[in-house]
Amino acid sequence: MPEVPLPATQAWLWKWDDVLPLARRAGELITLERGGDRRVLALANPGLRGLPFTSTTLWGALQYLGPHESAPAHRHTPSAIRFVLTGSGVYTTVNGDACDMEPGDLNPHPNWTWHDHNNKSDDPMMWFDGLDLPLLATLESIFFENHPNQLQPVEGHNGSEQRFAGVGLREMGATSPVAHSPLLRYRWEETERTLESLHQARGGPMISLEFVNPLTGGPAVSTFACEMHRIYPGERTPSRRKTGSSVYVVFQGSGRSVINGLLFEWGPGDIFVTPSWASVDHEASERADLFAISDRPVLQVLHLHREEELAERQEISGMFESVKGSRR
Amino acid sequence: MPEVPLPATQAWLWKWDDVLPLARRAGELITLERGGDRRVLALANPGLRGLPFTSTTLWGALQYLGPHESAPAHRHTPSAIRFVLTGSGVYTTVNGDACDMEPGDLNPHPNWTWHDHNNKSDDPMMWFDGLDLPLLATLESIFFENHPNQLQPVEGHNGSEQRFAGVGLREMGATSPVAHSPLLRYRWEETERTLESLHQARGGPMISLEFVNPLTGGPAVSTFACEMHRIYPGERTPSRRKTGSSVYVVFQGSGRSVINGLLFEWGPGDIFVTPSWASVDHEASERADLFAISDRPVLQVLHLHREEELAERQEISGMFESVKGSRR
Amino acid sequence: MPEVPLPATQAWLWKWDDVLPLARRAGELITLERGGDRRVLALANPGLRGLPFTSTTLWGALQYLGPHESAPAHRHTPSAIRFVLTGSGVYTTVNGDACDMEPGDLNPHPNWTWHDHNNKSDDPMMWFDGLDLPLLATLESIFFENHPNQLQPVEGHNGSEQRFAGVGLREMGATSPVAHSPLLRYRWEETERTLESLHQARGGPMISLEFVNPLTGGPAVSTFACEMHRIYPGERTPSRRKTGSSVYVVFQGSGRSVINGLLFEWGPGDIFVTPSWASVDHEASERADLFAISDRPVLQVLHLHREEELAERQEISGMFESVKGSRR
Amino acid sequence: MPEVPLPATQAWLWKWDDVLPLARRAGELITLERGGDRRVLALANPGLRGLPFTSTTLWGALQYLGPHESAPAHRHTPSAIRFVLTGSGVYTTVNGDACDMEPGDLNPHPNWTWHDHNNKSDDPMMWFDGLDLPLLATLESIFFENHPNQLQPVEGHNGSEQRFAGVGLREMGATSPVAHSPLLRYRWEETERTLESLHQARGGPMISLEFVNPLTGGPAVSTFACEMHRIYPGERTPSRRKTGSSVYVVFQGSGRSVINGLLFEWGPGDIFVTPSWASVDHEASERADLFAISDRPVLQVLHLHREEELAERQEISGMFESVKGSRR
Repeated sequence: MPEVPLPATQAWLWKWDDVLPLARRAGELITLERGGDRRVLALANPGLRGLPFTSTTLWGALQYLGPHESAPAHRHTPSAIRFVLTGSGVYTTVNGDACDMEPGDLNPHPNWTWHDHNNKSDDPMMWFDGLDLPLLATLESIFFENHPNQLQPVEGHNGSEQRFAGVGLREMGATSPVAHSPLLRYRWEETERTLESLHQARGGPMISLEFVNPLTGGPAVSTFACEMHRIYPGERTPSRRKTGSSVYVVFQGSGRSVINGLLFEWGPGDIFVTPSWASVDHEASERADLFAISDRPVLQVLHLHREEELAERQEISGMFESVKGSRR
Repeated sequence: MPEVPLPATQAWLWKWDDVLPLARRAGELITLERGGDRRVLALANPGLRGLPFTSTTLWGALQYLGPHESAPAHRHTPSAIRFVLTGSGVYTTVNGDACDMEPGDLNPHPNWTWHDHNNKSDDPMMWFDGLDLPLLATLESIFFENHPNQLQPVEGHNGSEQRFAGVGLREMGATSPVAHSPLLRYRWEETERTLESLHQARGGPMISLEFVNPLTGGPAVSTFACEMHRIYPGERTPSRRKTGSSVYVVFQGSGRSVINGLLFEWGPGDIFVTPSWASVDHEASERADLFAISDRPVLQVLHLHREEELAERQEISGMFESVKGSRR
Repeated sequence: MPEVPLPATQAWLWKWDDVLPLARRAGELITLERGGDRRVLALANPGLRGLPFTSTTLWGALQYLGPHESAPAHRHTPSAIRFVLTGSGVYTTVNGDACDMEPGDLNPHPNWTWHDHNNKSDDPMMWFDGLDLPLLATLESIFFENHPNQLQPVEGHNGSEQRFAGVGLREMGATSPVAHSPLLRYRWEETERTLESLHQARGGPMISLEFVNPLTGGPAVSTFACEMHRIYPGERTPSRRKTGSSVYVVFQGSGRSVINGLLFEWGPGDIFVTPSWASVDHEASERADLFAISDRPVLQVLHLHREEELAERQEISGMFESVKGSRR
Repeated sequence: MPEVPLPATQAWLWKWDDVLPLARRAGELITLERGGDRRVLALANPGLRGLPFTSTTLWGALQYLGPHESAPAHRHTPSAIRFVLTGSGVYTTVNGDACDMEPGDLNPHPNWTWHDHNNKSDDPMMWFDGLDLPLLATLESIFFENHPNQLQPVEGHNGSEQRFAGVGLREMGATSPVAHSPLLRYRWEETERTLESLHQARGGPMISLEFVNPLTGGPAVSTFACEMHRIYPGERTPSRRKTGSSVYVVFQGSGRSVINGLLFEWGPGDIFVTPSWASVDHEASERADLFAISDRPVLQVLHLHREEELAERQEISGMFESVKGSRR
């Protein structure tokens, strides 16, 4: 046993400019019909022996939904979230609730919820898919079921947002599903307003939010955290390390992160992964919003979470060669 | 032992028009100085042997703060809430956070938090005081302490609102006090917007909200619930009964409630109490907002909560003679 | 509001020699038939305006069950425990499980469990009754129901003891009632063996146990703690004070307690009550076992529990005149 | 995604008669000194690409400690348990508490507890090692530390057993570590007595116990369950399936299990593994005690646990060729 974690997961970055043409090409080549339910580009970590996993617990991918396409209804025990990057006019139905998807929105599709996606617009939409698929593979607990219909019946429109509309205000008698949040859309406007409000209260180079179950304070899905980090230009954040991996998605802005001494430069649409116990800090060139998923809730509930701030910012020893890297 | 609860608490109603002149008179007669910290009119239930308690667990009162007055800083183990009825330009400082008080706002001052009240305006303010004083008297657990200064130092302004600005969005690393919500002001706008949103989602004659800890979903204070009920005109709500008492404060609108067959008519500023296991229903003449406190969280945590809807609406057998009653 | 609790409950002691003749007399005068279900002598605290309550939250009493008598089956929301003082050959049936009652045994009859008592011997039995009746009166939550039969059907004999026979060993699939322990008899042998084992591990003048739910660690009943304190002769225990009241029952041994400076001498069968925030310490003349009930779980769950050890043992200022006191 | 779990873990059985000579040979060849801390034979599942793991989450092994040997003190975040098969006169020190190890005893060494093993006898001891090592490898959360001394100082002897000696009896003020049970030895006598007591209460072909934290009812370690199943001869148990894997260790007795239709015959010291969602039932030839570990607590806390009894006992389609299998 090593004295500290020796992760197989490697720090890595995928450039939007490399991925986008592949996604468009996939959109041309592959149609969405039963059997080929979703059109996704999985971000495969080079440290994981060819498995299509972004870390040992997390799966990140880009999903492309063409104009006027629908991805059929199914459910599975792996929990998924969608974080919208580009496009408009799409909704995803979750257990009967048709939830709009707009850039910056977080749409969870937790464990065993029915979901389908519907693009009513003339443009494609792309979003980040985050799943706990690698963890569930290890736990050998994957169940899957197709919906009897191509698309599930729609019972309401943004209904969960209507029912959870105020901070600290709970409908009397409201109950939460055991395994996840009853709120099925976290709208970008609300996130953005909250980031600014916290910044006013706190200041500092980075504001970090977690998307949680409004009825319990627990994570939006049980098996990974969903986070939003707003980084203000002017200084590097303190270097920190924690057990478990994170996958960061650059929603807007640009900057660079240092991961175990290696410098990673990023801009809109780029995605990078930080391995367990890696030293990590960030610096924005212009104000940047980084969405992230992390396996922290699993580590916390199993009492394996450790996290610390380094006494000093880590040294920078080199630069990640992203283009070479992502094309290998 | 009786087959069902035989409460000492009596159903009762206090009219705003009866209480207001008394409050004004108190404002003229009594000054706020150390020793006479607060100016309140306690609503004493006639069933409780002359004790100044509204039910066996709850204490309701009207507090009057004159123009340019300050009520000095202290703390106590009984938890208090303020629900503002009239006036503007007042703030209450709670553990250093200066929270605005405006009509319809709920301002909790939970167990052992420092608090003082400050009227910077030229007009008096009146609010409803809700406390667990009778319960804590029974539990023989009342501690009290004056702040070393007349007023505590102000460290922020509506800071808790800034830190809890978005639904389902939690600052990473945020922790809650054990005994109560970290949110120290529930602004009327937010409440009102949430009521309307729920009404759109649900319909029906009544929308009921509970004010909760945004980090846990637990009650805003540990020892009683704070609720807001919006009643739409057109029909009586179903008759229900539950263990434990409630104190209702009419914020706006008018209507009537039936309590164990007796009809109580109410309008803005009126306050009424429902005893344990009483059958209760409401009907609005015009859209009405009823704020309420209830000892339900205590009963729930002790596994003594029972609640049920009656198979049919209760019959009306008589009318509460409020004027005669409240002047007795 | 006072700076520290000013309890209405008075420190008091009832002598076994005073109560025993009254209990015997009651045994001669009163028969157990429907309508006069139980034969109990309630210990009424002189500070509580004539109410038959031992403190503001706890009710202590001595129950006398004559030879070949049965106390009929009923249930109620107030939770009860029996702690057996004298007699043998009695069983109490709780939700179908016939539990033996022997001296030193604790038999809980929690919230809404059916229970009847049956004396199959030629001698009377006496036990201490502990209930949360005063608390439930304040909470106006007392429900009561007679069983359709005089005695409930017996489905097993000491069945709960059989199912919870080993420390840290849980039957797979076992579930606990929400409001109380599934273990319905705490046998004296087990308590005594555990006291000695802890004494060997810890030493010191006092060993204190709490009777808990073996599946959750929570209190045996939700609304009060059941405790056993073994006091070894040689020194006074440290003086401590806590919020909430306790009722102590001397099971065996003798000694004295100091409560707010007043000395209370006690021997087998004596019962005394300590008020909220009273300074309390004990000293045994010979090894003594004190059973106690306390409202601590209620105060803890409401975040009102405070407890501290005094820097020095309190001074003794006088002596409680028990005979005069209890006959007043 | 598959409709039901398609585990990589294969059903497998290792025969005591095959493993014992290897363990003895290892005892001759390898000495225990810093650097080679432990002498263990890992049970490597043939489905896991050569990894020394028994399932994707669990690691089972046989540890051999020679006469008068000591295995040095260290700690690690993977949690371990020892279940003793043969030998006597050994103790393991856990955070200062020297705990005896005798056949049938369960000795947990949870997450980050210091532990060393000491054989004071003239005979070797062999025990089953159960760890969550594969899970922690996936979670990339393994930390390890050698104790500054070869052996840690001993502060007590079976102290945790002394402090948790009675069912449903908790030392007042006792607290539990967050991540595991404070009880560090589960003695066979207590387990055996509890099995028999439950059998008397329940009857049936199988009695199943879980080893739990006596203060909370949670699992003895956070990351896997420890169980004991006593199987009585006369009939096959019902066929059941559940998510997650189990490793069974035959403590005594003999019989056979059907796993996904394949028959596995077992006797004392044999060890077998059941994969996720496999149909499993057992039948004893003579009364048998099967110790088991399972990842059920992880699946439960992540809301991925599913378990069901099959409507009918599964059919037997073949027989596991254990000798050939285990020597491959």
